[in-house]
Amino acid sequence: MYKCNLTIVFPCEFYTNSFVSKIDRVDSDENVDRMEKIISLMKRRGFVFRSSDIYGGLNGFFDYGPLGVELKHNIKDTWWSDIVTRRDDVVGLDCSVISPQKVWEASGHVAGFSDPMVDCKESKMRFRADQLFFANVIVDGEAIGYVCVQECDNIDEAIKKEAEALKGKLKKTGTLQSLVIKPVAEASDEEIALIPSPATGTIGTLTLPREFNLMFRTHIGAVSDDVSMAYLRPETAQGTFVNFLNVVNTARVKIPFGIAQTGRSFRNEITPRNFIFRSREFEQMELEFFINDSEEAWQYWHRYWIDERLKWHKSIGINENLLGLDIHKKEKLAHYSKACTDITFKYPFGIQELEGIAARGNFDLMQHQNYSGQSMEYFDEDMKRKYVPHVIEPAVGVDRILLAVVCSAYHEEKVGDEMRTVLKFVPRIAPIKAAILPLVKNNTEIIAMAQKIYKTLQRRWNVFYDTSGAIGRRYRRMDEVGTPYCITVDFDSLKDGTFTLRDRDSMEQERMSLDKLILLMNDKIF
Amino acid sequence: MYKCNLTIVFPCEFYTNSFVSKIDRVDSDENVDRMEKIISLMKRRGFVFRSSDIYGGLNGFFDYGPLGVELKHNIKDTWWSDIVTRRDDVVGLDCSVISPQKVWEASGHVAGFSDPMVDCKESKMRFRADQLFFANVIVDGEAIGYVCVQECDNIDEAIKKEAEALKGKLKKTGTLQSLVIKPVAEASDEEIALIPSPATGTIGTLTLPREFNLMFRTHIGAVSDDVSMAYLRPETAQGTFVNFLNVVNTARVKIPFGIAQTGRSFRNEITPRNFIFRSREFEQMELEFFINDSEEAWQYWHRYWIDERLKWHKSIGINENLLGLDIHKKEKLAHYSKACTDITFKYPFGIQELEGIAARGNFDLMQHQNYSGQSMEYFDEDMKRKYVPHVIEPAVGVDRILLAVVCSAYHEEKVGDEMRTVLKFVPRIAPIKAAILPLVKNNTEIIAMAQKIYKTLQRRWNVFYDTSGAIGRRYRRMDEVGTPYCITVDFDSLKDGTFTLRDRDSMEQERMSLDKLILLMNDKIF
Repeated sequence: MYKCNLTIVFPCEFYTNSFVSKIDRVDSDENVDRMEKIISLMKRRGFVFRSSDIYGGLNGFFDYGPLGVELKHNIKDTWWSDIVTRRDDVVGLDCSVISPQKVWEASGHVAGFSDPMVDCKESKMRFRADQLFFANVIVDGEAIGYVCVQECDNIDEAIKKEAEALKGKLKKTGTLQSLVIKPVAEASDEEIALIPSPATGTIGTLTLPREFNLMFRTHIGAVSDDVSMAYLRPETAQGTFVNFLNVVNTARVKIPFGIAQTGRSFRNEITPRNFIFRSREFEQMELEFFINDSEEAWQYWHRYWIDERLKWHKSIGINENLLGLDIHKKEKLAHYSKACTDITFKYPFGIQELEGIAARGNFDLMQHQNYSGQSMEYFDEDMKRKYVPHVIEPAVGVDRILLAVVCSAYHEEKVGDEMRTVLKFVPRIAPIKAAILPLVKNNTEIIAMAQKIYKTLQRRWNVFYDTSGAIGRRYRRMDEVGTPYCITVDFDSLKDGTFTLRDRDSMEQERMSLDKLILLMNDKIF
Repeated sequence: MYKCNLTIVFPCEFYTNSFVSKIDRVDSDENVDRMEKIISLMKRRGFVFRSSDIYGGLNGFFDYGPLGVELKHNIKDTWWSDIVTRRDDVVGLDCSVISPQKVWEASGHVAGFSDPMVDCKESKMRFRADQLFFANVIVDGEAIGYVCVQECDNIDEAIKKEAEALKGKLKKTGTLQSLVIKPVAEASDEEIALIPSPATGTIGTLTLPREFNLMFRTHIGAVSDDVSMAYLRPETAQGTFVNFLNVVNTARVKIPFGIAQTGRSFRNEITPRNFIFRSREFEQMELEFFINDSEEAWQYWHRYWIDERLKWHKSIGINENLLGLDIHKKEKLAHYSKACTDITFKYPFGIQELEGIAARGNFDLMQHQNYSGQSMEYFDEDMKRKYVPHVIEPAVGVDRILLAVVCSAYHEEKVGDEMRTVLKFVPRIAPIKAAILPLVKNNTEIIAMAQKIYKTLQRRWNVFYDTSGAIGRRYRRMDEVGTPYCITVDFDSLKDGTFTLRDRDSMEQERMSLDKLILLMNDKIF
């Protein structure tokens, strides 16, 4: 079974022209089931909801529920402490989402951050030209016309079916020649005139592909004109470049150093999909790491950040067997780009970019220097000369990490005669760190001790207190949301002050004191 | 000296019509100086920059620099742990910024979230009608014409000056009758026709006041029409109401319980001002606390949350002498509102709302029930009946808290012959928790010990390492950014492993071991 890969608009590659739709093999239907189960669990247990759900949902937008918001916080906090506060060479920044046209003219987004679109003049429907596919149908050497289908699970088959239908309709006999399938984005003007609309089947109603800018626009102030037009940022990175001088002038930084930023970004995707993987509003974590202009510097630091980021993804519980690297080919890089390597993750819906690590030269600072007239030169005291710094950019989306974390953590296991669903989050990332479960509801001493443990742990961590239902059922509920530690206070607890600590993954139980547990949790949740 | 107060668009009161511009007395010019000094420090030390600074700045938008972002994180984290994770009865949520028209029709924002504007047809300038003031000039009982001024520090004086000028221009003698000053928003159609434009002085060029909606608009998808129109949320609260059923169905919550949300909100203010106090893009922290429909419930919980929130503001270092309460008068409340109390703060530019605590009845859930057709009824097991829950809403802006925290912390003190500037942040909120300062640069043992302390503390907290300059200068730099603890490693340290701990506020020094310091910091930073 074939499944079409997505064309992903990625921070390091915003010129959509350079993308070609790829078709990736996905192993089996099993993966489709798996994805459905994961999505279902995430909705059922309050990780993620459709945005504006009661009004029918807003396509490409999601809201995070009580457990989702904690998971997201943990991922962002972990990134922030590992990238910013625990390092000596990175500082943080937080820019506004709305930013003026000039910034995006300088960055190239106004001119180049777009997808090719075609309209059907008859139905008024719109399609992404790189997600519409067509073929010339040839029977025994005679071209009998064109067929066209929208991107789907099996394009080859869909096109072939259309071709057979056309042959039948035209009452042609003979052998259908093998079909050459191309995206409509690559069709010539003559071909466009002959391709039937996928909406109506009528020939000649499709317009030529034209570029549609993916930035959301708005207007500042009372007048809606060109002067007041502004954009919702499609990435946080440009805010960082725009503030380069502010940071150099106020923080005591010295190259090499980085500026890190997390925050919402917005892209008006024509076809958002794959759940939270590609949405129109998402959260980014981007590091711009400024280095000197030598060949050695970018080679060293590019490698360094690929290694660091790979380690980090493993450390937050992303399955390393599903991680990969996609080294962009030299000829596909933008002219200013030295190199770009994606860390990929094998989602149930295919292998996709998780994080891009780009060596962008000094393109961005040079552009802002040219457009703003402000010198971006930095005087390097060690090298005793000035230069406009180069940059290595590890850029990642929080939502796609969150999805990779959940896909890695999701397990179904047979326990006795029953199946259990368990999310094996690492403790650092788990939304609930521990559940405190008094064995019985009606013993005041047990309840008092359980409450004491609960209140002590609650001061430091997000913990959960649950008295309702059989203990086995309470364990299962906690397994399903990935709580690593279950603490059961029982009658023995009243004798020696210990309790049962049940490990989520091994399901093994051991007697434990509160002091020892705090040491254990301190060690695991850092 | 008089200074005009701002009309603040507040979560509990979005019908701008109900606002009347007030004029508050500000004590002295000293406060203006103080505000200028605070803003200057915040820029100079990298707390806050103008957004898109190198392009001339974007009016009403700000970027947070390395220290500002840490301060903001600390305020948000403190709110989140005190409101959500350390409580048993509140869960978190995180909704998308972009939301469809229907949500804002239901909430009343499409119809009512607006400011009155007038245009000058000649100059094409726009003014907020509630920030333009006019008076009829009467000399010895004869009305000689109208004067009009924009809101300024002293409106009485400005209007009087204009009136005298008019009298001079018309060569009138006699006594100027005392002037009745009114906002243009309250002018009759006849008066508008006679008021001179504040831009040109020409009579009859002002349009009638019309309502201008304060929500930023954008379009989702490729077509910019009414169907694709969406809004950037002007508050997070509506996302919470829209998700009420999702949370009730997935989290195990029972009334009374709250849903908390933090995140960016956007308001297209006509006249953003007072630095980060009133900007067009800001961050909110809003709690919707759902309660039953009895009279006792809202009275109890409204009082409860006023007390809790006051305590909280004090706990993060806001000067309690500058805090106050503004209880909204019954007749000024919206029809559905039971009560609304603002916690106010006396900024150098006047007393302003810091947080609003509103008892909103069940207006919002009822509106969404009516507009979505989904029942918002909750079955109360204790009361054995259904109702649509009521809500208490403590809603606050992060940026204005941050400004109140800095205004409270800012001190200038004479130390010996010199002045020191010190930000007396509470340790929990301080952007840098501790600075590690080796007394000398050229002693490898001292450097090694300082590095060891630095690395140990860095695992848990944002700390700073500084070797450059005299120790006194290093202390001053840390005072200015509010670092509570300075650790100096000196020659004595090599003997017994202790170091000097210098307290920022008392400037007292004591010998301290690393273990003892960690206990102290654990206790202060929770």
